[in-house]
Order: sequence, then structure tokens, then C-alpha cells
Amino acid sequence: MDTPAATRDRLIHAMLDHLRMRGFHGVGLTEVLAAAGAPKGVLYHHFPGGKSALAVAAIEVAVQQMLAGLDRLLAAEPHFPTALGRWLDGAERLLAASGWARGCPLAAIALETTPADTELRAALDAAFGAIRGRLARALISAGLSESAAAAMAALLVAGYEGALLQARVAGSPEALRQIRAALIAALTAQLPAGGPP
Amino acid sequence: MDTPAATRDRLIHAMLDHLRMRGFHGVGLTEVLAAAGAPKGVLYHHFPGGKSALAVAAIEVAVQQMLAGLDRLLAAEPHFPTALGRWLDGAERLLAASGWARGCPLAAIALETTPADTELRAALDAAFGAIRGRLARALISAGLSESAAAAMAALLVAGYEGALLQARVAGSPEALRQIRAALIAALTAQLPAGGPP
Repeated sequence: MDTPAATRDRLIHAMLDHLRMRGFHGVGLTEVLAAAGAPKGVLYHHFPGGKSALAVAAIEVAVQQMLAGLDRLLAAEPHFPTALGRWLDGAERLLAASGWARGCPLAAIALETTPADTELRAALDAAFGAIRGRLARALISAGLSESAAAAMAALLVAGYEGALLQARVAGSPEALRQIRAALIAALTAQLPAGGPP
Repeated sequence: MDTPAATRDRLIHAMLDHLRMRGFHGVGLTEVLAAAGAPKGVLYHHFPGGKSALAVAAIEVAVQQMLAGLDRLLAAEPHFPTALGRWLDGAERLLAASGWARGCPLAAIALETTPADTELRAALDAAFGAIRGRLARALISAGLSESAAAAMAALLVAGYEGALLQARVAGSPEALRQIRAALIAALTAQLPAGGPP
């Protein structure tokens, strides 16, 4: 038996997968519904706001996945620069394993929204803010001041998104690995030499 | 009298403007033709490959504009970290002046292409490669080794794109300014203290 919650979940995950590949405007609702095995009426039952509302739900799931991944990573590897390297290695593996097809769903939508897309932009801003906040907390624990941690967290998010973007169009991990090296060098130069104070 | 070259130019610039705002899939050809004041037949006369071919031409114009801007900036300001700060200030001004609507046209398309979009991806990879190359040359002149310059150049492109992306959805320059500060700190830590060797 298919519960309504399971259908809703399948719709969100199908949307998320399509967002990773083609961004928001490139996603056809027909494809998403086919991938989720759901009829159109079901979409509007769960998401009266249609495609945008489904995308907002997908953004929320994507950010929860990213935060959970970061939590696991930072718990397993307390040395921040090493954890950062693993985060980017994981992103490279996912992108390469998909044949350079699946990137970050947040970035794709971010660049397609106009200021009129207020709900999507608010969801994305909250998503990036939550990821920056999680990274900044870890950077403060590693010994950075609050303002240096906030700046570095914003740069890490930019480096992550910009690395996936350049690797994606190149079909090669080279730029991503260069960004990984530059970020680790930048972090190492800023962190207190003997570890957290 | 309107020359064919002028019409072609108007089409490219109208496409470029729409790409900045909504990405590739979000652009309707009807809007682009209306903005360029050109009938549909004219598009296929100049660009037999249609929308993708017009986007490739727009990418080439965008990268020439970016490279020319970087050349002017680096000629006027030989101190690289100061030039970098001005580059990001200029990007902030353009984004804010457009009401957080117009970002980098390269990044938007990059996240919407699938591996099947071979021409668009090749044009984008060449575009990012040219910008990385220009920045790396300047970084080598500023005193970095070839490999450190290549890594930092890839990070600067990522920082630029990731900064516009975060500022855009926030409708605020805060993340962009944090990234600017973190990049200048990272550069300053890496450059030889007394200037180029």
C-alpha cells in the first residue's frame, strides 16, 4: 500500500534529482510525475502551490541532507581542514559517479530565480544561511574568531558551489581539486598553529 | 538602416541579458526576439543551431567582456589583492543596481546543462578556463608558484560565482563581502611579503 506520505516523499525526491541535473526551469513536471509514479492531481493535493512549492520542499530536504552529512563528517573528523577535504572529495565522487550530471540543487535554482520568486529565494537564502552557520560553528571551535569564521564559512560555501560548477562543465575534477587545495591552504594559514585555543 | 551584423549583435546582447536573469531554460526565445526587435526567421538565419547556438555566442561575448574588464583592472591596479577587491566590488554594484536580478550568465547556464549539451559545456569550460588563465598569470606575476597560482585562480572564480549566488538569493551583499574579506586574507597569507620576487 502506498501511503500519501510515501507519495509526497517520492515527489520531493524525484524533483530533487531533476533539480540536480537541469535546474528549476529545465524540469518538466511531467518527467517528475513520471519518475515519482504519481498522477498530476496528487501533486496539487500535496503541493497546492505546484512546481514552486514542490521545489521549496525539495530545497528543505536537500539542506537537511547536507547538514546531516556535515554533522557526521565533523563528528568523525575533528580536524577541520581534513574534514573539509573529505567534504569536497565526497562532492567530487557524487558528481563524477553521475557522469558529471548531478550537481548541487540549491545552486542551480539560485541562479534561475528572479526577485519575483520570493518563496524560492527565501528558502534558498535560509538553506545557504544554515550551511554557513554550521560551518562557522565548526570554524569557531577550531579556533577562528566569530567574524573570521563567518567570512570563511561563506567562502567555503562559495568554493563548494563554484568547484562543482567548474568541474561539471569540464567533465573533469581538476578545478575542484585545485579549489580544494587552495581552501585547505587558506584555512591552514588562518587556524591557530597548535589547534584550538 | 539596420545591418545584419547589428541585428546579430542585438540578438546576442538580448540573450545575454536574459541569461543573467533567468538562466538558459528560463529564457523564452519569444522574449529574446522581442527585446532584440527581431523576427524569428532572423534568429535562424544568424544562428541555424537556434537557442543553444545563440547561447554559445552569448557566452563568448560574456567571457570577452569579463577578460577585458580584468585586463583594465589589473593594468590600473598592479597590487593584486586590491584589484581583487575592486573586481568583487564591481560585481556587487552590478548585482545590487539590478535589484539582485542580474548575475553571471556563465554560472547560470553551467548548472542547467546536462552532459548531452556538449557545445554549451565546451563553450563554458573554455570560458572558465580563459578566466582562470588570466587570473593565474596575474598571480604568478604577483609572486605565486605556477601550481599555487592555478589553485588560487580556480578558487577566485569559485569565490566570484559563489558570492554572486549567495548575495542574489539573499538580496543582500553580506555574504559577498564576507567572501571578499576571506579571499583577500587567503591571498595576502600566500603572497610574498615584500611583493613579487
